[in-house]
Amino acid sequence: MDVRNFTSVEQMEEEAKNLKERAAAAGAETWEDRKKAQTPQCKFGEDGICCRICSMGPCRITPKAPRGICGADAHAIAGRNYLRMVAGGTAAHSDHGREICHTLHATRPDGHYQIKDPAKLLRLANEWGVKTEGRDIYDIAHEVAEIGLMEYGKPFGTQRFLTRATEERQKLWHELGIAPRAIDREIATAMHMTHMGNTADAEALVRQALRTGMADGWGGSMMGTEMTDILFGTPQPRETEGDLGVLDKDMVNIIVHGHDPAMSEMIVLASEDKDLIEYARSKGAKGINVCGLCCTANEVTMRHGVKMAGNFLQQENAILTGMVEMIAVDVQCIFPSIGPLSECFHTKFITTSPIARIPNSEYVEFHPETAREKGRELVRAAIDNFERRDPAKIYEPKKKQGARVGYSCEAIIKELDGVTNSYVDVRGTYKPLIDCIKAGVLRGAVAIVGCNNPKVRPDYSHIEIMKELIKNDIIVVTTGCSAQAAAKAGLMKPEAKELCGAGLKRVCELVGIPPVLHMGSCVDISRIMLLVNDVCKQWGIRCDQLPAVGCAPEWMSEKAVAIANYVVSTGIDVYLGIEPQVKGSAQMMELITEGTRKLTGGGFIINTDPHVLVQKMIDGIEKKRAALGI
Amino acid sequence: MDVRNFTSVEQMEEEAKNLKERAAAAGAETWEDRKKAQTPQCKFGEDGICCRICSMGPCRITPKAPRGICGADAHAIAGRNYLRMVAGGTAAHSDHGREICHTLHATRPDGHYQIKDPAKLLRLANEWGVKTEGRDIYDIAHEVAEIGLMEYGKPFGTQRFLTRATEERQKLWHELGIAPRAIDREIATAMHMTHMGNTADAEALVRQALRTGMADGWGGSMMGTEMTDILFGTPQPRETEGDLGVLDKDMVNIIVHGHDPAMSEMIVLASEDKDLIEYARSKGAKGINVCGLCCTANEVTMRHGVKMAGNFLQQENAILTGMVEMIAVDVQCIFPSIGPLSECFHTKFITTSPIARIPNSEYVEFHPETAREKGRELVRAAIDNFERRDPAKIYEPKKKQGARVGYSCEAIIKELDGVTNSYVDVRGTYKPLIDCIKAGVLRGAVAIVGCNNPKVRPDYSHIEIMKELIKNDIIVVTTGCSAQAAAKAGLMKPEAKELCGAGLKRVCELVGIPPVLHMGSCVDISRIMLLVNDVCKQWGIRCDQLPAVGCAPEWMSEKAVAIANYVVSTGIDVYLGIEPQVKGSAQMMELITEGTRKLTGGGFIINTDPHVLVQKMIDGIEKKRAALGI
Repeated sequence: MDVRNFTSVEQMEEEAKNLKERAAAAGAETWEDRKKAQTPQCKFGEDGICCRICSMGPCRITPKAPRGICGADAHAIAGRNYLRMVAGGTAAHSDHGREICHTLHATRPDGHYQIKDPAKLLRLANEWGVKTEGRDIYDIAHEVAEIGLMEYGKPFGTQRFLTRATEERQKLWHELGIAPRAIDREIATAMHMTHMGNTADAEALVRQALRTGMADGWGGSMMGTEMTDILFGTPQPRETEGDLGVLDKDMVNIIVHGHDPAMSEMIVLASEDKDLIEYARSKGAKGINVCGLCCTANEVTMRHGVKMAGNFLQQENAILTGMVEMIAVDVQCIFPSIGPLSECFHTKFITTSPIARIPNSEYVEFHPETAREKGRELVRAAIDNFERRDPAKIYEPKKKQGARVGYSCEAIIKELDGVTNSYVDVRGTYKPLIDCIKAGVLRGAVAIVGCNNPKVRPDYSHIEIMKELIKNDIIVVTTGCSAQAAAKAGLMKPEAKELCGAGLKRVCELVGIPPVLHMGSCVDISRIMLLVNDVCKQWGIRCDQLPAVGCAPEWMSEKAVAIANYVVSTGIDVYLGIEPQVKGSAQMMELITEGTRKLTGGGFIINTDPHVLVQKMIDGIEKKRAALGI
Repeated sequence: MDVRNFTSVEQMEEEAKNLKERAAAAGAETWEDRKKAQTPQCKFGEDGICCRICSMGPCRITPKAPRGICGADAHAIAGRNYLRMVAGGTAAHSDHGREICHTLHATRPDGHYQIKDPAKLLRLANEWGVKTEGRDIYDIAHEVAEIGLMEYGKPFGTQRFLTRATEERQKLWHELGIAPRAIDREIATAMHMTHMGNTADAEALVRQALRTGMADGWGGSMMGTEMTDILFGTPQPRETEGDLGVLDKDMVNIIVHGHDPAMSEMIVLASEDKDLIEYARSKGAKGINVCGLCCTANEVTMRHGVKMAGNFLQQENAILTGMVEMIAVDVQCIFPSIGPLSECFHTKFITTSPIARIPNSEYVEFHPETAREKGRELVRAAIDNFERRDPAKIYEPKKKQGARVGYSCEAIIKELDGVTNSYVDVRGTYKPLIDCIKAGVLRGAVAIVGCNNPKVRPDYSHIEIMKELIKNDIIVVTTGCSAQAAAKAGLMKPEAKELCGAGLKRVCELVGIPPVLHMGSCVDISRIMLLVNDVCKQWGIRCDQLPAVGCAPEWMSEKAVAIANYVVSTGIDVYLGIEPQVKGSAQMMELITEGTRKLTGGGFIINTDPHVLVQKMIDGIEKKRAALGI
């Protein structure tokens, strides 16, 4: 193994340092400056025992003031704050799913949005009992979209996708009262329960956190993934590149950033229009280079191989290169600092969604009827901006890595079919994977997901943990900003097999996959839930028996808290490298680490040292193997 | 006028002091103790510039740290916190409305819940295009309930009740983009917009606050009011009493507390069952005395004349009398302190809703199928508890006042019809009221609503403001804890006309009403919205032209912020005696005081001195009169 083939965190940090110097030169501030100014952070907030839920307060729990004015204690306050984080996260993910449902509803045979995966649409239509025979595919799409939209607000019943889980999960969820009703209703219930004068019992708050999280993972997020595949195609493996080195000095660089692919797809399409490429050339550029940031990057790389410029804490760095003509964003994880920062450079900052109105940006709202033209307008504006570059401000990052991306469940099964014997083996299942785990060739699997967080060294935990896991023959699936960390390090290229233990290396060679599989954006963690449940069905075990765990080593957003809750509900342990803000309540700490495990079989394991955390994961997986007798 | 007929705030405080001494003797703490322990309160929280929305934080805005780690400035942070308060308040009110819709859906001709006002049901059915001819009233009720429930989650369209507003309001709301879609969707949108990395533009946050508030007042709250009237009867004037003196030493005292009348109605009914009254007598009591606290009190007093024991900051005082056998609560505004406090006395603390699980209580869940029996069980348990009283701990509050309650819009119109000449005048309108305002006999009207808040002297602002207004010939309508303050002071008895100016006194005498009209619970502020809009339609003016304003002098809950937003959206100025927690952002302060006025014609006027605040109200009303040329 030649380590020079991979990018180390130290190398990434070296590049970040160079870019930080450009910020200083341009008189711009970055998150490092703001982090410093915000330190030390408020201990009450960090511990979750500051209550701002009514205007009698704010109240803070101390030894001398063990209750807020209403009488809420540390457990009630930390529990309410925690549930509100889940509500915020579920609202964000699910609203993304809803927008995609609305986009599906707006598809037309001659429209800007069309059905790219009719087979997946038909499967979903059949699952939902929508008549398909003899019907126009767009009629079916609209009916499916309407049913999907009703999942957000139906007055009766629970989420349709729950029936995709193992029998034992479905039974358990109903018994525990955590089977989610309409998605928005669970958000409203969470907000109501946490309103002044309502639930003060931490266990009830944690249960509603599970149910609200379930409304995300088995509701809104899964809707997002399904409908996105139908609209823009189900991902299949393809090659791409990651890290800021994907920006090209000679091209018009456009960054798409955010989450919902409806806008970014239109920019990608426009960037391929011949007349616009010609226009770019007429302005002295070699062409148009669209690159992605955050989950938008995941969406467009999975379907188009669009290059990934970086993850959450690199969003300012992209602009600091001085080579970005435009950064177009939709929703979530967008630093408001992009406004003032872009003004220090020639970069145009475009906001496109009523959900994310940000000062110092140009607002171009996207609608299905005009999306294609808007995409072209933006690309044209970016091209026009090319000549406004200030050569003195340009810094070319050198580092980038190859990556193979696009491992949807469908794609994984297709790869696994490749190692079966079509004459004797069952095909279209996870059996080869299950056999490898049973045999111990693979010890298990870990989903590494989530954000960056300035509370820890950016990307370090993601990468260290992945390396340690694959060395120990544990296969990694990844989404979100974690996937981009893997791409930047080179862990998603097939050559990363050289970093693996003998078992995983063999599997990578046989199946022809990298040891870290890119499964998409954060909403695509729903793919991982389906993967887990289908594996368990085919294996005949409970979800909490599977030697597979989840890990969010550098999480920061409320969405991550929602995710953690549905993963735990699904019986999967979640390893966290950042402490949830409930430390001020011993009861809440017990509930999220051990309490939920008694209910669902899953709970949080928290440790801020990535090396300790990964060892706990390996131990956890081996313990599950032992319990299975494998 | 004999002031001895009225109760002064000083007298109330004297009684509270006596009860506080009982707390000390019993080793119990009260909100006064906790308030003291929580003082001084966190300035960042009070100013709205502490952000706990992601786990990169908490971040706080200071001159040296003008932005959070993500780059959000004071305006974004204060705006997001503010919008989340509106989301919490809307969730609470609207979920209450939803529960009532579900109760309506569960009505049966022989069930525990039945239709008490079929005429109001038929009016609503006609309004919503539900076929009524030849149909069973319960079939109609179920269809109306289902349509109502869909208002929470429908994927398309805006709230049905918007069409009840004046034409100009409807047009304006659609133009401004603040016409609310499905109720839960507005809550989800608010939570999504305020999630990390989304809206940082304060004006967009304030607009969504208006829209989310509208989903409450013209959605969930109005649904709550309408369906409650259909289920339990539309209020008509009736006599009752208010203040802790309504507790009776010789009777089994049961307090119903919270908001949703579904539970409390069942306890009221059970308390009238002869066998249970007999049972109470067999235990040495003279009978069963059900009294209400907070909005539950308003609900049951409006329909049964149940006595009102007090408002928000009296909930602990009720238990401190040592005479309360049971306090049964459902949702909202319930101090978690009731748990430990009730354990210092013989009082049984019963929680009944999954929305409000509270430690140290007995949990008895209410369902439509078993509600009547559960009500009887609880009353029986309270009776059994009568003999567990500790005579040494008993303190009998002496003060109570008579009050006339129950002024629904229907009841007001009926009263006004009483002063028309049935041969020549149009009947069934607000014309007599409009004529009085035009003539200047009444200068205008003020809705005084909302909570108590330990930040100010309890009830003092409510009562001082009401007295000053009626002295100035301004009629007062009131709901919520403000209504109970009025009751305790004696301002809702007809004799209160003696405190009025000559004009209002004459109106009170002619129409036979008190100068302060009790319009119900906090969700019933929807009644006030309908009153305002119908008056404006009949007068032919815009809502923002009407010499009428709203006032929440001692508000504390997120619901109050939601209410303030829909009232302002309706074009009505709102006078606040507690500062909204946005002071740390000059932009937010400008937006909520002046910014919204440019949009809707309504805004906040904030002053913590009730005497200054009421003078501003009087000036505001006179200014509106002048603009109308009256």
